[in-house]
Amino acid sequence: METAQRVGFIGLGIMGRSMSYNLHRAGFQVTVWNRTRSKMEEAAGWGAQLADSPREVAELSDVVITIVGDTPDVRAVVEGENGILAGAHQGLVWIDMSTISPATTQQLAKTAAERGVRMLDAPVSGGDVGAQEGTLSIMVGGEAAVLEEVKPVLQAMGSSIIHCGAAGAGQTVKACNQIMCGLNLLGMVEALTLAKKAGVDLDTMIQVTSKGAAGSWALSNLGPRIVEGDLDPGFSVQFQQKDLRIVLEEAERLQLPLVGTATANQLLRSVQAHGGNEDGTHALITVMERLANVKVAPGDE
Amino acid sequence: METAQRVGFIGLGIMGRSMSYNLHRAGFQVTVWNRTRSKMEEAAGWGAQLADSPREVAELSDVVITIVGDTPDVRAVVEGENGILAGAHQGLVWIDMSTISPATTQQLAKTAAERGVRMLDAPVSGGDVGAQEGTLSIMVGGEAAVLEEVKPVLQAMGSSIIHCGAAGAGQTVKACNQIMCGLNLLGMVEALTLAKKAGVDLDTMIQVTSKGAAGSWALSNLGPRIVEGDLDPGFSVQFQQKDLRIVLEEAERLQLPLVGTATANQLLRSVQAHGGNEDGTHALITVMERLANVKVAPGDE
Repeated sequence: METAQRVGFIGLGIMGRSMSYNLHRAGFQVTVWNRTRSKMEEAAGWGAQLADSPREVAELSDVVITIVGDTPDVRAVVEGENGILAGAHQGLVWIDMSTISPATTQQLAKTAAERGVRMLDAPVSGGDVGAQEGTLSIMVGGEAAVLEEVKPVLQAMGSSIIHCGAAGAGQTVKACNQIMCGLNLLGMVEALTLAKKAGVDLDTMIQVTSKGAAGSWALSNLGPRIVEGDLDPGFSVQFQQKDLRIVLEEAERLQLPLVGTATANQLLRSVQAHGGNEDGTHALITVMERLANVKVAPGDE
Repeated sequence: METAQRVGFIGLGIMGRSMSYNLHRAGFQVTVWNRTRSKMEEAAGWGAQLADSPREVAELSDVVITIVGDTPDVRAVVEGENGILAGAHQGLVWIDMSTISPATTQQLAKTAAERGVRMLDAPVSGGDVGAQEGTLSIMVGGEAAVLEEVKPVLQAMGSSIIHCGAAGAGQTVKACNQIMCGLNLLGMVEALTLAKKAGVDLDTMIQVTSKGAAGSWALSNLGPRIVEGDLDPGFSVQFQQKDLRIVLEEAERLQLPLVGTATANQLLRSVQAHGGNEDGTHALITVMERLANVKVAPGDE
């Protein structure tokens, strides 16, 4: 019998917390590190080995996973003095599951390769519930052979694992995903606001339109929450805005005008201006309410 | 046994042609009129009675249906010298299945009521295929009791018949529908263009994103057609633009800023500037192609 594969895990936020536990439950030996040390206590409770640095995580692991906030956070835990690359041995696989810049991802994959480290980008969708239940959708960029090698690791966290192409392709597909989330959301809140101003029952409008050519996940899942006045995340405005910034930076690099996405990004900024960073993305309805001087979601102010 | 209900039908375009035939097949006595007389020949072939004017249609019918191009076309066949109201008897039900202005619909419902005519607005979605198969989704505004009375007539044409509220509510829900169609479409073409410029396989991107939070009818149904280079309608740009003009007029009346919808409308105008009026709405991809200087849909120029 082989020794269980040693998996390092860096980033114990709302996603990483559940994902690392699911790796443990699947039988992997898990070593964790988190910038805020107090978040490592829970992991110690279920039997994780605690490391003092990303470097030490790399030294103790065959596969290292990162899921941290933003592009600079990834660079810090990878390229820093006590980073993954400093502790990496030949043949280590590093899987970055953060949502960051596709262009930076391509650079990091090269840097890692120069150190003998094989990198995959593997951003996820499915939210905190998908992380808990191990049903994340995982979009993978990098070499297909490396993906095959670590597939059992990813299968402990996700139910759909799809190879999207070379390094950065996972991040590109995630960017595409966030473009559509933003614009489907905008269409849904504009429609709800028109229905409200015209005096049409919102539930009826959602019921009629969600089954046909206007249908979307946003309409079916976030529309009813707006009607109930529930603006909790789901997926929060601050993370959507971080992701749209990455999309728009990538679009600038590619000389790609994204008129619709830029509009969604600017309107979501107004949610932030009113202190709604922690609200769900469907709090975009409050911007429509202010623009149109009408109350759509009951009871949120 | 009762005599079959007499149904008048005005407007034998791509939709009305199939809808009137389905009424005939359901056992109604159908009298038709169309502005272009030659289109009435087909209906004569399956046994429709031909009228000389909308006025005569009204004289010969218990229920009159209109499905014509735009708001002025409806006014002409209803309020004109030889219009429906000129030939209407007390108790006639007029069902307008065109997509027109909610505000004009409310005025017309009042005008009709003054002449003893009960009006329903009942715009549809489901396209030419839904019209042929009798599976249209029908959004109804007006009095619920009148809808109950004529429900068998609507059931001959549609599989989902939903009462949305008072006069104009059907048109309002259709407007909401078209807002979301426009913005889901914009999100989809922006995402496809990013994927293309970044070198990611388009089918893979659609496959990965369509099942999750970015999912929409537009992505699942129109996305693959773009990848195949098929820009045929579906639903044509000229009709979507007519509908978005109605949406934006209604929004002006309601003092409702629709930043996203206006953007979709302006970008679709560029399809029109390049002669794409008759293309499907997903020809919006060609605007992205010109904006970003990249080819996404194969073989369309």
